[in-house]
Amino acid sequence: MGKKNIYVAGVNEVPLPKRNIEIVERKGIGHPDSVADALAEEVSKALCKMYIKEFGHVLHHNTDETQIAAGQSAPRFGGGTIIDPSFILLVGRTTTHIAVGKEEKSLPCKPTALKAARKYLDKTFPNLDVDSEVVVDAKLGMGSDDLTGVYKASGHLANDTSFGVGYAPFSITDKLVLKTEEYINGNLKKKLPESGQDVKVMASRVGNKITLTVACAMVDRYIADMTEYRSAVEQLKSSVLDNALKIIGSQKVTVDLDVNTGDDYKRKVIYLTCTGMSQEMGDDGSVGRGNRCNGLITPNRPMSMEATSGKNPITHIGKIYNIMSKMIADDVAKSIGGDAEVRVRLLSQIGKPVSEPLNASIDIVTTNADSDPKLPKWKSEAEAIAADWLDNVDRVSESIINGKVRTF
Amino acid sequence: MGKKNIYVAGVNEVPLPKRNIEIVERKGIGHPDSVADALAEEVSKALCKMYIKEFGHVLHHNTDETQIAAGQSAPRFGGGTIIDPSFILLVGRTTTHIAVGKEEKSLPCKPTALKAARKYLDKTFPNLDVDSEVVVDAKLGMGSDDLTGVYKASGHLANDTSFGVGYAPFSITDKLVLKTEEYINGNLKKKLPESGQDVKVMASRVGNKITLTVACAMVDRYIADMTEYRSAVEQLKSSVLDNALKIIGSQKVTVDLDVNTGDDYKRKVIYLTCTGMSQEMGDDGSVGRGNRCNGLITPNRPMSMEATSGKNPITHIGKIYNIMSKMIADDVAKSIGGDAEVRVRLLSQIGKPVSEPLNASIDIVTTNADSDPKLPKWKSEAEAIAADWLDNVDRVSESIINGKVRTF
Amino acid sequence: MGKKNIYVAGVNEVPLPKRNIEIVERKGIGHPDSVADALAEEVSKALCKMYIKEFGHVLHHNTDETQIAAGQSAPRFGGGTIIDPSFILLVGRTTTHIAVGKEEKSLPCKPTALKAARKYLDKTFPNLDVDSEVVVDAKLGMGSDDLTGVYKASGHLANDTSFGVGYAPFSITDKLVLKTEEYINGNLKKKLPESGQDVKVMASRVGNKITLTVACAMVDRYIADMTEYRSAVEQLKSSVLDNALKIIGSQKVTVDLDVNTGDDYKRKVIYLTCTGMSQEMGDDGSVGRGNRCNGLITPNRPMSMEATSGKNPITHIGKIYNIMSKMIADDVAKSIGGDAEVRVRLLSQIGKPVSEPLNASIDIVTTNADSDPKLPKWKSEAEAIAADWLDNVDRVSESIINGKVRTF
Amino acid sequence: MGKKNIYVAGVNEVPLPKRNIEIVERKGIGHPDSVADALAEEVSKALCKMYIKEFGHVLHHNTDETQIAAGQSAPRFGGGTIIDPSFILLVGRTTTHIAVGKEEKSLPCKPTALKAARKYLDKTFPNLDVDSEVVVDAKLGMGSDDLTGVYKASGHLANDTSFGVGYAPFSITDKLVLKTEEYINGNLKKKLPESGQDVKVMASRVGNKITLTVACAMVDRYIADMTEYRSAVEQLKSSVLDNALKIIGSQKVTVDLDVNTGDDYKRKVIYLTCTGMSQEMGDDGSVGRGNRCNGLITPNRPMSMEATSGKNPITHIGKIYNIMSKMIADDVAKSIGGDAEVRVRLLSQIGKPVSEPLNASIDIVTTNADSDPKLPKWKSEAEAIAADWLDNVDRVSESIINGKVRTF
Repeated sequence: MGKKNIYVAGVNEVPLPKRNIEIVERKGIGHPDSVADALAEEVSKALCKMYIKEFGHVLHHNTDETQIAAGQSAPRFGGGTIIDPSFILLVGRTTTHIAVGKEEKSLPCKPTALKAARKYLDKTFPNLDVDSEVVVDAKLGMGSDDLTGVYKASGHLANDTSFGVGYAPFSITDKLVLKTEEYINGNLKKKLPESGQDVKVMASRVGNKITLTVACAMVDRYIADMTEYRSAVEQLKSSVLDNALKIIGSQKVTVDLDVNTGDDYKRKVIYLTCTGMSQEMGDDGSVGRGNRCNGLITPNRPMSMEATSGKNPITHIGKIYNIMSKMIADDVAKSIGGDAEVRVRLLSQIGKPVSEPLNASIDIVTTNADSDPKLPKWKSEAEAIAADWLDNVDRVSESIINGKVRTF
Repeated sequence: MGKKNIYVAGVNEVPLPKRNIEIVERKGIGHPDSVADALAEEVSKALCKMYIKEFGHVLHHNTDETQIAAGQSAPRFGGGTIIDPSFILLVGRTTTHIAVGKEEKSLPCKPTALKAARKYLDKTFPNLDVDSEVVVDAKLGMGSDDLTGVYKASGHLANDTSFGVGYAPFSITDKLVLKTEEYINGNLKKKLPESGQDVKVMASRVGNKITLTVACAMVDRYIADMTEYRSAVEQLKSSVLDNALKIIGSQKVTVDLDVNTGDDYKRKVIYLTCTGMSQEMGDDGSVGRGNRCNGLITPNRPMSMEATSGKNPITHIGKIYNIMSKMIADDVAKSIGGDAEVRVRLLSQIGKPVSEPLNASIDIVTTNADSDPKLPKWKSEAEAIAADWLDNVDRVSESIINGKVRTF
Repeated sequence: MGKKNIYVAGVNEVPLPKRNIEIVERKGIGHPDSVADALAEEVSKALCKMYIKEFGHVLHHNTDETQIAAGQSAPRFGGGTIIDPSFILLVGRTTTHIAVGKEEKSLPCKPTALKAARKYLDKTFPNLDVDSEVVVDAKLGMGSDDLTGVYKASGHLANDTSFGVGYAPFSITDKLVLKTEEYINGNLKKKLPESGQDVKVMASRVGNKITLTVACAMVDRYIADMTEYRSAVEQLKSSVLDNALKIIGSQKVTVDLDVNTGDDYKRKVIYLTCTGMSQEMGDDGSVGRGNRCNGLITPNRPMSMEATSGKNPITHIGKIYNIMSKMIADDVAKSIGGDAEVRVRLLSQIGKPVSEPLNASIDIVTTNADSDPKLPKWKSEAEAIAADWLDNVDRVSESIINGKVRTF
Repeated sequence: MGKKNIYVAGVNEVPLPKRNIEIVERKGIGHPDSVADALAEEVSKALCKMYIKEFGHVLHHNTDETQIAAGQSAPRFGGGTIIDPSFILLVGRTTTHIAVGKEEKSLPCKPTALKAARKYLDKTFPNLDVDSEVVVDAKLGMGSDDLTGVYKASGHLANDTSFGVGYAPFSITDKLVLKTEEYINGNLKKKLPESGQDVKVMASRVGNKITLTVACAMVDRYIADMTEYRSAVEQLKSSVLDNALKIIGSQKVTVDLDVNTGDDYKRKVIYLTCTGMSQEMGDDGSVGRGNRCNGLITPNRPMSMEATSGKNPITHIGKIYNIMSKMIADDVAKSIGGDAEVRVRLLSQIGKPVSEPLNASIDIVTTNADSDPKLPKWKSEAEAIAADWLDNVDRVSESIINGKVRTF
């Protein structure tokens, strides 16, 4: 059993939720950067399943580059027109040929990718006609492989220096942002189909006051005129506010909510779309430009710049470490309880297995961390949790392949 | 009422069916050139219907340029793999914006085109998964128009010199070729799903002996091994032969039939595909390179080089005249009966309406045409028929838009 | 030495130049269909040379499918703007890998194709900036081959029924059309750079009167205003007319000339372009839709529908037979002299070498052909000429590869 | 004059260069992510210049989305083969039409973008044939604008919450990484053309020991065999080491250098390319996935996730603030001297001008920052510097447009 190099430290800092300023953002599932992330990940998952079905193993691939070029539309009350479909280019590397004994077998990588992408779009965006309002193409490099390699993350040796960072628990600002988007794109939809999937939620907390800003693409076919538009936005606002108050519960913060602040009713500038997705008209998107793998953009926290979506869940250590850092932080935070901020950073060691990082650093951040009497207990708990995750890296890969883990 | 310039002549020649050599070919609906033709025409029809629905009129468009670039496949008994989807690029001109009073209205031309193309592929090729085994993109130039123009063929003035040619009746060789393909892609399919849609039928008649050559892409998923392949080809052959004998009936010709002559069982070279379409692997296709608008390629007959499919059925005189020539020839041949070959050629006159050609020439070809006592009667019948069609050009346009006329 | 099946016949018909009606058209080198033809052929020639350089042999390829989708421009006196470049997709099949002994060698097919295409555009269209005003992409299927095959046309066996047709000599109408386009795109250019490369020439002869219609895209950067435009068109007209009179010489025909008849000075509708090519704005193009391999479209003559440009000059019998038919007809016409129309038709015989057609038919057409005392002499001359060409098919291939033969 | 909200603080922390662990990376100019960044920025600069030339103002655009899909190559000693060119898709938004009085003027945005991209590739990558070994296409949304807007950054109001972060001075690890890449792609090239442009430099410092890892794509045409390859790599190593020692000078760090550690001479696995760019074969790239705007990836420092390259230098506050943060940090660090780490963070205020951030925070980080007697002096210096930059935001825009500022 190799060395795990787990270092747990108490850090004497004020945890972020108690500091004065905190900014958190989430690009909802219909934002073009999120669409790109989702498609990259869907393609990778579908390839994994196809490879496993054909050979019992995940073969080489990395599909972490999807480019979305916006289309052109003319939204109109009652239902407008897509003039030029948006264009989605799936990009990456796959294994299309594999030697099985003396024979070579071919694999349907591009069809698998295209099918997964179209299926996701169709399932996720009810106001988008996937057959006509978007063009999906793929440039997936074709390569060959053999069946002699290593096919589990646990047996994989790092061939690069990769990082993963994660933190827990979520602050109330984090929760508000994440759950607000999930609410708008979840339970609210039946009640308010006028709200599209391209939702951007930003929260800025100063002291105990959170300003929550929501930009939501409204869907023209459900809205007859300006009066209905204003009413839909009002309804969105009151529903989101109610939901926010539930999330906050007894916590001592106040919320100010702005919805579609870019609207200017006098000049008739409103956020109206045909499909509920801004890629129909103005916004391009690509992988790794939006949410980190905890679902948020948190400029006041350490973030990894690594694009997680679309990477190989068996061989890409950056992907695995980013996701695992979050899992370790979650478990440690739960275990030690209280207000401490847990920050996890995993750093790979070239030539060593995934389970043996060069440095697995866990910081437990509270104002008087190093003098806290519980620190030794915390340390041992954290160390055990980290060691357990590192020993079970294949569980992380499986969770990714089975779509049980968020990547954006 | 303008001048129609109809000239009917008796021509002293041996009608083609009585000459020694005749060659006829048909590229079946699954041949890439036919797929390109079909998509170009489907797109035009769908645009016409969309324009009519929105404005009551067909607006400017010409979508007669579809390019198909072959994909890559690995067929295998029991079901192989599409490695790289074929790529279909719809190309043409459309009207995307139209002034309606002071407002400008946008039109969903590309979505309409993409939808029509995908729908046709899905409906016509049961072994092709349109969501994953083909990529459909469109480069349809976007233009604007107003509603002040002329929207019926009958009011349209020729702005170019265009031709149309047609002949009737079909010879037995013509019929054999056309009906053999229709049979294989029609009634035979239930009985023999192993036969794909890419069927090429060629007949070469020397005297009374017709050599019929059929190349048919076989579909791997229905064929377990080489024995089944040979059996399917045999079954195809005997069914086609039976059908051919029915077509021939009491006519005095004999038929030799070859099926998939490129096969070489010893070297294991066979015509096996995943989708029944050769565009999956080796064959590119484009519009206007295959069948003429009577469904055939007839090098021994006058043929127009004009691509008919995808052209505007209201304003493109070449398209209308080609289709109308065939209609006139059919009616004249029916009217005069007997063995005479009727050849029709329509030539447009710049600046004049479609109904006033520069020259509407109808040749009635028999060995002693000009001394045949029925010639005067034939002439008057032919003239009346041609005049009637020219007066009713809008009926031709409507038939095209409603898909009641073959264009390839 | 196999059988050549050469049949020479005297046909009692009026040669076309003496009949009442004759229509001839040529799409100039800047017409999008001609651009497509040219690029397809340039790519094939470049591949041939690359293959020969690497292996001494031409390998498998067919690059006869180029699609041009028009761009968008805003021409303006003094020099306008290309808004959206036209798009050129090179399509076809190539050999990218070849087994040399136990090794496999890779070949730069796509780079060779792209380079040849760009070079041709750059050299041929001085007003087009190839780096910015056109996008050239390629979908060239990649295949593998070995070096054991047959690499000369003379050793190649027909695997399909292919035709070739040709005629000679050119009528005065033919000559006028061909030479007018060559003049406008040749000697006239220095004197009149205002004339672009997209020139369409059509001649309609009724009796002795030829109506010559020229449509020529004018280039905006050389034209300051409407006065200069009108002057340039006038200059074009008078130069073309002078040239036409030289071509006609003492022949008894008169010429009426129309230039840019679509212009309407009152409505300010003129044929102005930025690049001298209509693909910048309105016109798409593809291979095989324009001129036949004699450079003309001649609806009153037998024509092959086969696209000649881009096909393999060693293995594609349709290409070779079309080009050879023209060569045989030329030589026969020269040899027999006089006014007779020579029509040549070559028909391949499946499984036999190129030099052994199923039927090499040469018709010598004059009003009293079969009673002409020179007919026996003509027959023997024609037979010898045809036999010689068939014996020297490799010379045809070489001429094609070296660009000494017109294909459009 | 609005409020600048500049807050300067002394922070009691150990500056990073004195901590135990530091990791720094730079993707060289030939890395596909850097190529994407460069092209996005070149396109934006070229559009700016075109807009300024035509109207004196920069118009709306954002071209921060370039996707590179890798090609396929077969490198070989002495010079190998590009089989499939890499594909570059320029994506973004531009202004193609502008109302000038009652007229509408068209702008050549796509041609400008394509030309700038091709020119950059041609100039920067001497071993890449831009005409044949890469395909460049563009999907740049076309929009219209008028000339009534605000065209200077100084007059622009933030319509979003954007951040910028920067730090100074560079640590010795930072310098080593940046200057090593600059050396390999600069002065070394004449001496060692064998070294390609795709260079990745990573440094990992533990205490005083820096491990510098260089991966450099070698160019096959200059290398005859394995012996020459090894020799070139050795020469690269010794040159880089010499250069590193010069950079380090008298500083108390040691350097270990690894070059192309992925090579395995026994298995003949080496890093050989045709073009010196890994996009020829295996690596895709896109904007914003590589270096931050200081040229480095510094996971131990605060980094912005914002893609800087390709964004509008007048209206995109994220771009301006990121670049300005670095400039402020540089000037402050220079002004206060010594070892303190200066961290700058600019946060925009919705609805306020660029010169009035919500928060311009400058942290001066040393071990005893808040008790340092120079702190008040530092604070006033820092405040003045920041205020000056904020007052002169147009200078930042100009520097960007003129290419005087690094964006990747």
